[in-house]
Amino acid sequence: MKSVHAAGLDALLITHLSDIRYLCGFSGSSGALAVSGSRAVLFTDGRYTEQAKKEAEGAKVVIAKGSPMSAACEWVEAAGVERCGYDPAHTTVSALRAMRAAVTPKRRRSLFQSAGELVGRQREIKDQVEIATMREAAALGCAVFEETLQDVVPSMTEVQIALDLERRSRTAGAEGMSFETIVAGGVRSALPHARPTAAKLPRSGFVTLDFGVVWKGYCSDMTRCIHVGRVSPEERAVYDFVLEAQRCAIGCVAPGVQTGEVDEAARTVLRRAKLDKFFPHSTGHGLGLEIHEQPRIGAKQRQELEAGMVVTIEPGVYLEGRFGVRLEDMVLVTDRGCEVLTTSTMALIEL
Amino acid sequence: MKSVHAAGLDALLITHLSDIRYLCGFSGSSGALAVSGSRAVLFTDGRYTEQAKKEAEGAKVVIAKGSPMSAACEWVEAAGVERCGYDPAHTTVSALRAMRAAVTPKRRRSLFQSAGELVGRQREIKDQVEIATMREAAALGCAVFEETLQDVVPSMTEVQIALDLERRSRTAGAEGMSFETIVAGGVRSALPHARPTAAKLPRSGFVTLDFGVVWKGYCSDMTRCIHVGRVSPEERAVYDFVLEAQRCAIGCVAPGVQTGEVDEAARTVLRRAKLDKFFPHSTGHGLGLEIHEQPRIGAKQRQELEAGMVVTIEPGVYLEGRFGVRLEDMVLVTDRGCEVLTTSTMALIEL
Repeated sequence: MKSVHAAGLDALLITHLSDIRYLCGFSGSSGALAVSGSRAVLFTDGRYTEQAKKEAEGAKVVIAKGSPMSAACEWVEAAGVERCGYDPAHTTVSALRAMRAAVTPKRRRSLFQSAGELVGRQREIKDQVEIATMREAAALGCAVFEETLQDVVPSMTEVQIALDLERRSRTAGAEGMSFETIVAGGVRSALPHARPTAAKLPRSGFVTLDFGVVWKGYCSDMTRCIHVGRVSPEERAVYDFVLEAQRCAIGCVAPGVQTGEVDEAARTVLRRAKLDKFFPHSTGHGLGLEIHEQPRIGAKQRQELEAGMVVTIEPGVYLEGRFGVRLEDMVLVTDRGCEVLTTSTMALIEL
Repeated sequence: MKSVHAAGLDALLITHLSDIRYLCGFSGSSGALAVSGSRAVLFTDGRYTEQAKKEAEGAKVVIAKGSPMSAACEWVEAAGVERCGYDPAHTTVSALRAMRAAVTPKRRRSLFQSAGELVGRQREIKDQVEIATMREAAALGCAVFEETLQDVVPSMTEVQIALDLERRSRTAGAEGMSFETIVAGGVRSALPHARPTAAKLPRSGFVTLDFGVVWKGYCSDMTRCIHVGRVSPEERAVYDFVLEAQRCAIGCVAPGVQTGEVDEAARTVLRRAKLDKFFPHSTGHGLGLEIHEQPRIGAKQRQELEAGMVVTIEPGVYLEGRFGVRLEDMVLVTDRGCEVLTTSTMALIEL
């Protein structure tokens, strides 16, 4: 890892599980990866002996008697490392204390150095294999959405639709869902983060479906709003404004563009319609092995998009006590612009 | 909160989401709770305006323009707080930096003080309402297990069984599952943490089912091993030893007993059978709003059990490449001993 040396460090201690999975492929729930020069050692516990041996590539596996993190710290010290970087965004104050307690007193102050998000930064730009996998994840999400839609009838409950999405995803080979599936009908569509309930679909109104699959470790994420019964002119107008905001934001996505500009593109459309004050969240986020990764696509963010990033674009309008609309795609930043990975139609579907 | 003053603090900043839910009922995915004297203020973002107003009890709700945590820090400073405690086990090094950056330079060094797990400690002892809820959660888990079992046939895949457990749980009103459901058949039962696959159940062998529901925010957790086909004498012997280890550990659970003694009780049984080296994890863990809470029930742990704690007891034996058995109950520590909350039979079920 060139970035390790560039940062003046001679080793890295990685404890964030998805960083570990990214670097060596191990997907267990307990581990610490120490990287020094050309050596990488994965420390885990006895529950993962078999799995670690099978999954970990390019790293020696050590089953720690006690805490894998403490074992990794001891190894780093014994390897003669002078400055070992850790990720302050994924290391708690207690964990840093435990890391320091695991080494000899004279090394306690100097050995571990905050190293920024070295792995997180690297993960922002997806390589060809990752892009292919995320394309598959997005396509699976779309297929599941389209199949589920065939079977949705107004007498179904939110929970039943969520379970249908999940059953189809898992049956098709998804490892799981990338976050808690959202199915929110009627007035509940005005809650940006609603958990599905036993309520039946509304007689008339929007139903928001926001879900994602995990495919070979990678997350998909998409939102569509369908409508039960006849759409009122106001509902249609809000839907169209959100769709226009989403399309405008996607139109801005290209290498070199600041993420704040993309956010502003969505917000400008809604401002024109006097709906911007009902859009209380940011426009999108990066995703990959985790459902929320860098970059953030929010107001005034100055990070520039780069080819290989995969982000969501998901403006929404929420009219409390009445209804809400959010539309979301996964978008790959390409050399010249972008490509929408979630290709299911955005045309308003009426049941 | 008496504990705040006892620790020499005049306020607490709570950012761990399940602590926030514990203290004020808010269940959103973004928030910071500041508690000073008799005042409590919940800071969240615009996605949760409606939900926060509905859920938060005893706390004023403020929708932050930027980060809820920074807004909470500013409020703490403006309230004239001298020493505000934070939880080092749930505060990252970056978050602490951001907390300090949110207040004026002269307060930066002194305002925020590591306060240990004040809320976590409190959460270890469940009150009557929590115990009633966890009893319901455990009963729901058992009902779901027993119903699912009725429909299990050897031609099913691991994923199908997992989906069945999940569908029944959600249909019965669970908010979700408390962790990724484990269904592991045949040689895969030797993996303590196996994800369900598209593999059919083995012609002959164990199938481990380890799952939990979330009921009104609280987690259940239970493991049963069923057997397809005729049980070999060796399989029966291993099953019986694990069951005896589990029963012996439960027999030790009482107020005043160190958790390490409970762990040792399970390990002693397996040692006698020369199976202890195939038991690579700790015997159990506390649970509640989170699936893993304090106390840990592991080797040499000296924390004493107290009435009102709810813990799992789950020894296991894993014979790599062959088979594994784990048996797990949720156990409530009572004034005089304990009560098993997950009452589904432990008798070996043969399909």
